[in-house]
Formats: sequence, C-alpha cells, structure tokens
Amino acid sequence: RDCLRPSIKVAGVKKSYREVIDVSWGDPHRAGVKPLSFVRQVLAACIYPQLMDGDKLMVDVKQRAQMLLRACPGGSVGSYCATAGVPEIVERVSEYITRRDGGVPSHPENIYISSGSQWALTNILKVLVNSEASPRTGVLTPVPCHSTTILSLMALGAEVVPYYLREEQGWALDVEELQRAWGSAKEVCNPVGLYVINPGNPAGYVQSRKSMQEVIRFAAEKRLFLLADEVYQDCVFGEETEFVSYKRALAEMGSPLSDTVELASFHTTSKGLMGECGLRAGYVELVNLDPAVMKHIYSLFSADSCAPVLGQFALDVMTNPPQPGDPSYPLYMKVDHFLFLIHRKAFTEFINSLPGFSCQPVEGGAFAFPRVFLPPKAIETAKELGMKPDTFYCMRLLEEAGVLSSPGSEYGQQEGTYHIRFCIMTPSEIMEEILRRLSTFHKRFMNEFS
Amino acid sequence: RDCLRPSIKVAGVKKSYREVIDVSWGDPHRAGVKPLSFVRQVLAACIYPQLMDGDKLMVDVKQRAQMLLRACPGGSVGSYCATAGVPEIVERVSEYITRRDGGVPSHPENIYISSGSQWALTNILKVLVNSEASPRTGVLTPVPCHSTTILSLMALGAEVVPYYLREEQGWALDVEELQRAWGSAKEVCNPVGLYVINPGNPAGYVQSRKSMQEVIRFAAEKRLFLLADEVYQDCVFGEETEFVSYKRALAEMGSPLSDTVELASFHTTSKGLMGECGLRAGYVELVNLDPAVMKHIYSLFSADSCAPVLGQFALDVMTNPPQPGDPSYPLYMKVDHFLFLIHRKAFTEFINSLPGFSCQPVEGGAFAFPRVFLPPKAIETAKELGMKPDTFYCMRLLEEAGVLSSPGSEYGQQEGTYHIRFCIMTPSEIMEEILRRLSTFHKRFMNEFS
Ligand SMILES: Cc1ncc(COP(=O)(O)O)c(C=O)c1O
Ligand SMILES: Cc1ncc(COP(=O)(O)O)c(C=O)c1O
Repeated sequence: RDCLRPSIKVAGVKKSYREVIDVSWGDPHRAGVKPLSFVRQVLAACIYPQLMDGDKLMVDVKQRAQMLLRACPGGSVGSYCATAGVPEIVERVSEYITRRDGGVPSHPENIYISSGSQWALTNILKVLVNSEASPRTGVLTPVPCHSTTILSLMALGAEVVPYYLREEQGWALDVEELQRAWGSAKEVCNPVGLYVINPGNPAGYVQSRKSMQEVIRFAAEKRLFLLADEVYQDCVFGEETEFVSYKRALAEMGSPLSDTVELASFHTTSKGLMGECGLRAGYVELVNLDPAVMKHIYSLFSADSCAPVLGQFALDVMTNPPQPGDPSYPLYMKVDHFLFLIHRKAFTEFINSLPGFSCQPVEGGAFAFPRVFLPPKAIETAKELGMKPDTFYCMRLLEEAGVLSSPGSEYGQQEGTYHIRFCIMTPSEIMEEILRRLSTFHKRFMNEFS
Repeated sequence: RDCLRPSIKVAGVKKSYREVIDVSWGDPHRAGVKPLSFVRQVLAACIYPQLMDGDKLMVDVKQRAQMLLRACPGGSVGSYCATAGVPEIVERVSEYITRRDGGVPSHPENIYISSGSQWALTNILKVLVNSEASPRTGVLTPVPCHSTTILSLMALGAEVVPYYLREEQGWALDVEELQRAWGSAKEVCNPVGLYVINPGNPAGYVQSRKSMQEVIRFAAEKRLFLLADEVYQDCVFGEETEFVSYKRALAEMGSPLSDTVELASFHTTSKGLMGECGLRAGYVELVNLDPAVMKHIYSLFSADSCAPVLGQFALDVMTNPPQPGDPSYPLYMKVDHFLFLIHRKAFTEFINSLPGFSCQPVEGGAFAFPRVFLPPKAIETAKELGMKPDTFYCMRLLEEAGVLSSPGSEYGQQEGTYHIRFCIMTPSEIMEEILRRLSTFHKRFMNEFS
C-alpha cells in the first residue's frame, strides 16, 4: 500500500509554507477532492434511516437508500451479508459490467465484492502462487508498478518478474519486452501470471485495444493467468483515448481465446470521481476459470467474512449513478469531470517547461510520473546521506516547499533513472499552489547542485 | 463464517407461519436488535457532515464526529488511513483496554485494527501456521467451536487438534483434556497454538479466572501461542460471572509467565450491544511477541490496506461510549442490557422443560446450544436422506415452524450427540414467538419419530 513509503519527515527547518500538501497517495479526498453528495446522502440515510423522515433528502436518495436497506438482513447495514457481497448489489455490478462492455455478458456468480480491490487481488494471487514451490511461482509485473502489488507478491513468496514499460513511447507495454522478461524468468521460476495495470499507476498510460490484443495472445501462448488491475477505468482523459476492459478485448477476439484465457479484472470505489478509499470496497470479476478453482476461491473469500456493507452501497452507486431525469442527477454531474483533464495538461506542460524534468503525456489514472534528471552532485549528496537520489529530492521538496510526493524508487524504474510521482487528482487551487511551490523549489535545487 | 452452513431450503410445504425467524447467525441486527442511535448518529454525521449544521443532533454526537473527522486525512472518511488503523482511535482503544484490565498497561503499537476480528485472527494464524511444514502445524481448538476459525485453520493447512469442552460441567475447559489432546497431537503434528473462545460460541460458558490460569500455565509449559477470541466480552450475564481478559489473567500471574507467554486477544464491533457486523471492524492486541515477528505482522496487515474507516469509528464509540452527564448518555443506556439476561433464563428453562432437550446454563455470549436427544427413528430417517441428524432436525424446524437455527455438527460435538444452536440475542417478542413455534414443532417431531 502507498503508505508504506519510507517515512519522510519534516526536519526542524524554517518553513516558507503554511501547510503540507500531500499528493503522495492515490487518495482523492486526502488531496482535497470533495466527496460526491449523492453517495454521502445515500450512505447517511442507510446508516440512520430516521433521516428519511423529513424532506431534506431528494426522493431518489431516499429510494436508493430504501432499496439498499431492503437487501440487508434485518434491514440494517449492521448485518453480515453473503460472502461474495449483497446479492442484489452483485447483480447490479454485473449488469453494469455488461453495459460497460457493450453487451459482453457478465455473470453475477463470477463476481466477488471485497474489502477493497487490493484484497481481492491478494486472494486471487493466493490461488496462483504456491509459496513453497521449487522453482518459485513467477508473476510478470510492470516496471514501474503500483507498489502494494509488489509487496503482496513478495509476501506470498512469488518471484516478481519485471517487464519494463517503454517510457519514451508514453510508457507503452511492448510484447517484445514481455517475451524477454518471460525468457529470463524461465531460468529462475515458473511464470504463471501476468499482471497489467490499465490505466496505469504510477505512469498515466492507457492501453490501446491493439496492445491489449497482443498481450492477450502472449498470455494465451504462454498459458499465463491475466491479472488486469483496472481500478482507474473511469479516469481516462486523452482525447483519442478510451478505456477498453481486458474482458471486452478478450471477448472480441473470439474463440478459442475468448473461452480459454483465464482473466481476473479488478475495480474499486477508491478511485475515479468517487474516491472513497476509506470505505473499502472493490470487486473482482473472474473469466474462464475452472469450476474447481472457483470453489477454492469461494472458500478463500468466505474465510474472511464479507466486505463492509457501506462500501458495497457506494459500489452500487458508482456502478449505477443517478440518471438524467433523477432529481440528484444535475448535482451529481456538476462535479467537474474536466478538472482532471485541465490538470493533466497544465501539469505536464508546466513540468516539461522546468529544466531537468521530462514528463510523458498523462492519458489516464490519477498520477503524473515525470522523470527528473538529477545533477551528479545531488546524486552524490543523496548517497552520502544513505538515501536514494529520488527520495532525497522528495525529502527536500517536502522540507523546503511542503509538497509531499513519492519517489520513483518505490515503484521501480530503469537503473540510473529517477522519477517523482504526483497525484494530480486534486482541486485547481491546490494544483496551482503545488506548481508554484514546485517551480521555486526545483530551480533552487538544481542551482544548488549544479 | 456462519453463512457457510449447508444451505437449508424451505420446500414447497404449506406453512403455518408468516415469516422465517433467522436465529442461525451471531448477527444481532438480523435477529431483530435495533442499532444504537448514538453510534448511527455519529457515523451519519461523519459521512455527511452537513448534518451537523442544524440542531437535530446532540452536541456530544457532533463533538465526537468532529473529533473523528479531524483524525482523517483531508477530514474525510473516504481517505486511506494507516495500516494499524487511525492512530487516534488505536490510542483510544489502548486506553480502553487499560481501563478494562484494571490498569494492566496496553500499548498502542501492539494493536491492529482490522476489517473484523476474524480477519485479524486469520493474519495471526498465518504467522503461526507453516502450510507446508512436515509434520503439519497444529492448533488446539475447542469442540464445539466457532466454525469460521476451523475453516481458516483448514484453509491455511493447519492440523485442527480438537479438545472437548465438558458439556455436563457447563462446557468447562478442562486442562486434563488439553493434556490428552496435546499428547495425541504430538504423534501427528507440531502443536504451536491454543485457541480459546471466552465467552463461548456456540456454547455460552464464561471461563473463571482459575480456569484461565490453568490454561495459561499449560500454554507456557507446552510453549503454545495463546489465541484468545474474546469477541463476546461484553456479553456476560451470569450473576456470579465476570469477564476477565486473558491479558489481565496473565499479567496477574506475574513474571516469568507474564512476560513470556505469547498472546493475541481479539475483539470486535460485531457483537455485544453494538452488533455492527456489517461495518467490519475488530482489533487484535498482541502480548510478548518477538520484535521480528511484530515486524512481519505489520507487513501482513499492510499488504491488505487499512480497515474500513467507518467501522473504526464504531470501534471508537464501543470502547469510549457516552459518559454520565453527556447528552446522549440516557438514550445510550436505555438499551435494555437485561434483555439478554431475561432471554437466557427464559430460554434455558423453557428448553429444559421440553422432553428430549437439555440445555446448560448460558453465562455469556450470544447463543444457547442445547443438546437434543433425537429418537432413533429420526436418526435413521435423516441418514436415509443423506443428512446429518441435527441438520435434519433444523431443516424440519425451518420447514414446519419457520425458525432458522443451526445444527451442532457445524461446530463439532461428541460423537453420537446432537445439538442445535440458537442466537438468543433477540428482542423479547421475537423470543416468545420462537419458543411458541419451537414447542409446538418439537412435540410433533418427537411424536412423529417415537
Ligand atoms: C493500481 C492500483 N490497484 C489497486 C489499488 C488498491 O485500491 P483499493 O483501495 O481498492 O484496495 C490501487 C490504489 O492505489 C492502485 O493504484
Ligand atoms: C467467536 C467468534 N470470533 C470471531 C467472530 C467474527 O467476528 P467479526 O465480525 O469481528 O469478524 C465471531 C462471529 O460470529 C465469533 O463468534
């Protein structure tokens, strides 16, 4: 998880800023994004149903709350629900997926709602990874990569097999590189899985359909289980970019691929406009798994009881938002979807205008992951302090400018390159302040070490 | 988890009841208990802070909500928090434990808040159990036992080593029986852990201090890690019965025991008067663990992100309820603590008055676990149907009387004995209706098979 980063502490220096701005997490509310009213009203009404007595809440808020409470045993969010989630919500998530994928059918029995998507991923990895196997179980994993997944893989005793995304090509996923990684892996482990993050984290790429088809063919050829981390699917900004799910891409390729390649796709309430990380709800949809494996997965999920019911309710709203004509629709839509669009352009342009920074376009996700060309003297100083050079940069940025970012070394990067991750899903005023602080700091830093 | 019981379906018979009463779970709200207003008001205010603008909410509700929101990054329940939980809440839980244990100190760094107590238990078991060890890792486990723990142990590849509670002595935990179990285990596995549930589930016993001291001495002698499942600690009803935590009992025994016996104690918001199972929050407190093991536990918990923030807020209220003088205190206290006291007596007396039933006193917990002496013809009929005899009884009770209970075979019982578990944490009207239905059904059933 993101909070595992080496703790960066503000030393006793005189600060030129009033407050630390924390853009080191993929955590929208922490970064200043406001929660969606409709979601919060529905949840409040479910928690404390007396709120529905007055006329303060819109009729669609009340209807949604009543519908959700009816699905709970005893009509309370305080009851346990079924292992895979509240059945009515699982059903509605499945309908959402079918709509999203242009009619490719989704079946509720293949969906597990979990306490966050990471937890579902860990459970599926448990099925794939035999911790005591010799040679070890390998999972092909992108560089850079969402750091928690690497931790999960290591905790399970898997061999993390790195494949490098092509930074110069906008962090493209290149099948030749997958081949290389797989070839080198074969010598040390038994590769069984291929983990992809699309849209990316920390790098903000969005895969094209063609790229996904290549990946699927590769997975089929090598008999790899595809783990598609698609938690940023609602965060796609590029004009000519669209999100295509791996499930849809696979279905479109037809038989035999579409009914043989094993796939798990993950989604969550933590990201996108919802940004409800603290509620802990996500889901996994499983495709083409053997019934015996599905049974094993059921028992894995059931051993840990059910996902938090309120998080499941947020998932219901995320997958079934208010529709045109609903009283809450105008407000729901007022959230500026384009906020992020503005930022990503402003951010990359600005960053690219700073000497020693180079940032690929951000097509999706929540982050910019610019490369920083650190002066040799800065690298030396960092090493003398026993720090990684990018961590040193982040620490100084925090100390001197009160901006908390995270170093590329947490996510993996090509040897000798350095990156900084910024969460850019943040309100405009905050983003402007970040850029102001970053610019002043960066110039001073580069001067100091040039 | 409880919902794993063999699914019992109502066949197409004509029913003499209007609604099924479900007392098969340890789930108060499902069984008709109402949530506590203070908890729900605080949570609603945290979810939708605009609620605090009016004068509808008591001042202590608002203060609590504000205090909790201040502890969240960005002031939102939608942010991730630290791995072990919101630090302020962990601190307050720790203070609560110190108060509960009459001053035996508790340290926040030994506490992990988790998505339900079961999940914390599974994580601690992961540390204890080496799934590929030969001989296998053994954990001494009571019979009867909360079924989910058995599932977790099996899923981890542990050897479940049964020790039998003495039904005739009110389900007492007898050290001689522990000795026997340990002795027999030594031949097939390497016993490393001892799991105790106090107060009990499914059997409603409460251990005496003396019994706990014996258990602790035994654990020390055999170098067993003590897993104390104390989720029913607030459900103790017997006049001369009090809950003593294993941590306190251990501390009172002094050195060297008090600083060597390894102990994990579990608690939850799911039980007691709170009964908030669906929020998913619990905690584990660890005692006398090696720092290296503590580090490993940190990484285990962090790989699955944090516990749901709203559940953590409920945990805060549970461990720090309104105090005399607070505006919400009178209502908080109005909840009839003695409801359950009335039930347990009424229930056991009534059950014992039915021919073929025998029920030990219920001193604590949420369940009665009477033994039923099934007529040989009923046992035969069940076997012809390919069913366990107690499952057959439960199925008929459901079909004919609309009462959903759960069979003893789910929890383990002495060969040739049969039990039925009823959740007795339910409002009086419902309890009366259950007893009416049960009585009519039971007499008919016994007649039919005599
Ligand atoms: C790529 C990716 N996958 C999964 C997650 C975890 O999300 P959740 O909160 O649903 O566990 C994150 C969170 O940052 C992420 O970036
Ligand atoms: C003895 C015991 N331990 C643990 C649990 C699990 O509780 P939680 O909801 O905190 O995971 C239960 C629930 O029934 C229980 O009876």
